[in-house]
Amino acid sequence: MTQFEQAGEAKLDVIAIGNAIIDVIANCPDALIDELGLSRGGMMLIDADQARTLYDAMGPAREISGGSAANTLAGLAALGAKCGFIGQVAEDQLGEVFTHDIRAAGIQFDVPARPGNPPTARCLIFVTPDGQRTMNTFLGASHLLPPEKLDADAVAGAAVLYLEGYLWDPEEPRAAMRKAIAAARAAGRKIAFTPSESFVIERHRDDFLALIDEGAIDLMFCNEPEMATLTGKPDFEDGLAMLSAKVPVLVVTKGADGAVALAGGERAQVAAAPVDKVVDTTGAGDLFAAGFLYGHVRGKSLEDALRMGAICASEIISHYGARPECDLADFVAQRMG
Amino acid sequence: MTQFEQAGEAKLDVIAIGNAIIDVIANCPDALIDELGLSRGGMMLIDADQARTLYDAMGPAREISGGSAANTLAGLAALGAKCGFIGQVAEDQLGEVFTHDIRAAGIQFDVPARPGNPPTARCLIFVTPDGQRTMNTFLGASHLLPPEKLDADAVAGAAVLYLEGYLWDPEEPRAAMRKAIAAARAAGRKIAFTPSESFVIERHRDDFLALIDEGAIDLMFCNEPEMATLTGKPDFEDGLAMLSAKVPVLVVTKGADGAVALAGGERAQVAAAPVDKVVDTTGAGDLFAAGFLYGHVRGKSLEDALRMGAICASEIISHYGARPECDLADFVAQRMG
Repeated sequence: MTQFEQAGEAKLDVIAIGNAIIDVIANCPDALIDELGLSRGGMMLIDADQARTLYDAMGPAREISGGSAANTLAGLAALGAKCGFIGQVAEDQLGEVFTHDIRAAGIQFDVPARPGNPPTARCLIFVTPDGQRTMNTFLGASHLLPPEKLDADAVAGAAVLYLEGYLWDPEEPRAAMRKAIAAARAAGRKIAFTPSESFVIERHRDDFLALIDEGAIDLMFCNEPEMATLTGKPDFEDGLAMLSAKVPVLVVTKGADGAVALAGGERAQVAAAPVDKVVDTTGAGDLFAAGFLYGHVRGKSLEDALRMGAICASEIISHYGARPECDLADFVAQRMG
Repeated sequence: MTQFEQAGEAKLDVIAIGNAIIDVIANCPDALIDELGLSRGGMMLIDADQARTLYDAMGPAREISGGSAANTLAGLAALGAKCGFIGQVAEDQLGEVFTHDIRAAGIQFDVPARPGNPPTARCLIFVTPDGQRTMNTFLGASHLLPPEKLDADAVAGAAVLYLEGYLWDPEEPRAAMRKAIAAARAAGRKIAFTPSESFVIERHRDDFLALIDEGAIDLMFCNEPEMATLTGKPDFEDGLAMLSAKVPVLVVTKGADGAVALAGGERAQVAAAPVDKVVDTTGAGDLFAAGFLYGHVRGKSLEDALRMGAICASEIISHYGARPECDLADFVAQRMG
């Protein structure tokens, strides 16, 4: 018996709504980030013309399925959770690649591909020699996910609903997420949320604070700058105090400085797990969330859940791409001791 | 002055004709190779239905541009050679990916994409825990490269014409290659050839032996089983003696046992370069050819050219995919001492 099954029998452990994206990942000298006017370490939305220009300026690349919540699910599934994904690709080759990869990871994915234009979303990721990733996302079909494609029964049948803030920005997926929140709450399920990026918070801060005030968010993952933007409090402890008063389980990642979690009056922290070489930080936060969420719902202590998050993040930053490459369950088990 | 420029001023150092393929690379347990009836360590041609079935059985994958000769060019270009590629993609997303990657590697590539079906070629590569790759190729638009798309002037303007045996199998590219051989010989250029795979040799042995007898092949790359199939001599030394009598520069790779080269009565050999962990052997032969060819035409000794080949192969097998990930020129320079 695990916390995954707290509200009656759940068909899935976690169902997530997120971007269905193919990452296009290339090495890049530091100077090119400035030349192209990119937002180093951040995520920028780009249109089709910008995508063409940036792709032309990019070195030889590799294509690996991505999307923040989808990456988290890939981690959860690799650890042993039963997962489902809701997101939208186009009816094209990159859509087939995304669909293959998520299903091959053992994740249920039934949303039909969208015919015609725009194409499947892609994220052009420039990786500098320090392993830092700079993301430029062309959202394509992903941001047109209509609420009608949401299977509310599937949401009601999952122990945890996991929501990716990136998809709060476009109108149709936002409506789908609101529908999902209602379905999850009606079924007594838990809702986990990540605001994804400061620019999303800047645009939807009132929405996010309202959800938090309503008690709709049971578990939140964010990083330091996101917490500061969300709370309006530049001081870390002030931000923690404000959010943790309203969010039952709060996890704040601090990059190379590890992470902090607060839940039920308890506080724990963890250092980053050691890595031989940071190759590509893409997906570090996504996999941290996967490891923590898996540990937490399996009834681990707050500190152990944080450790699992840090270990999963260390696997993902040791190679290109945001999907686990090794047997993640084994990788975590060996390092948890 | 280098050997690249031996027959009058060359616009390109190397021009190659080869498959324009996207590799789809996934980890795979040993048992799955048997279950699927695959040819472990080899390359099998598959049709669209087989491609669908195998893709469904495959784990989460990464897409990286491939193609044997194209990989060799990527290595040569990374080392500093001026290269051009002749091959055909379809007008689709994977074709755009291939085109981007080869141009981003600094390689001239002007063959227009082919509209309509079939799609761009892809190679489904299953990588077992020992790093061995088992390749299953759907040739798509690649094997429909028509001789009319061959730019004979470009071939005549390159110091070396490099031919990939895989493309000798389908009719249209074979005609393109014959046209290229004629153009290169008329211009006094050198021709390098790799038979690619034993099954190709089995089907076209007479053609290959005729080319060798005519003196059309100045430089040949093959591995042990390919040499045995081509010469009909199971004994390694017998095969070497037979081929080296007719091929001015002969390089035979022996996997983990290194390689042997014979040229102008001289013989040299090299051990495999050390690797921390063999991740994926895809492209080992292609990059060996790149390193050797670069060293040879830059006037290095036979042994040093072999060492450069072994070093390039060691880079490529230390990660997924058959395109160099690091600064290959720097990587080789550091290890050559």
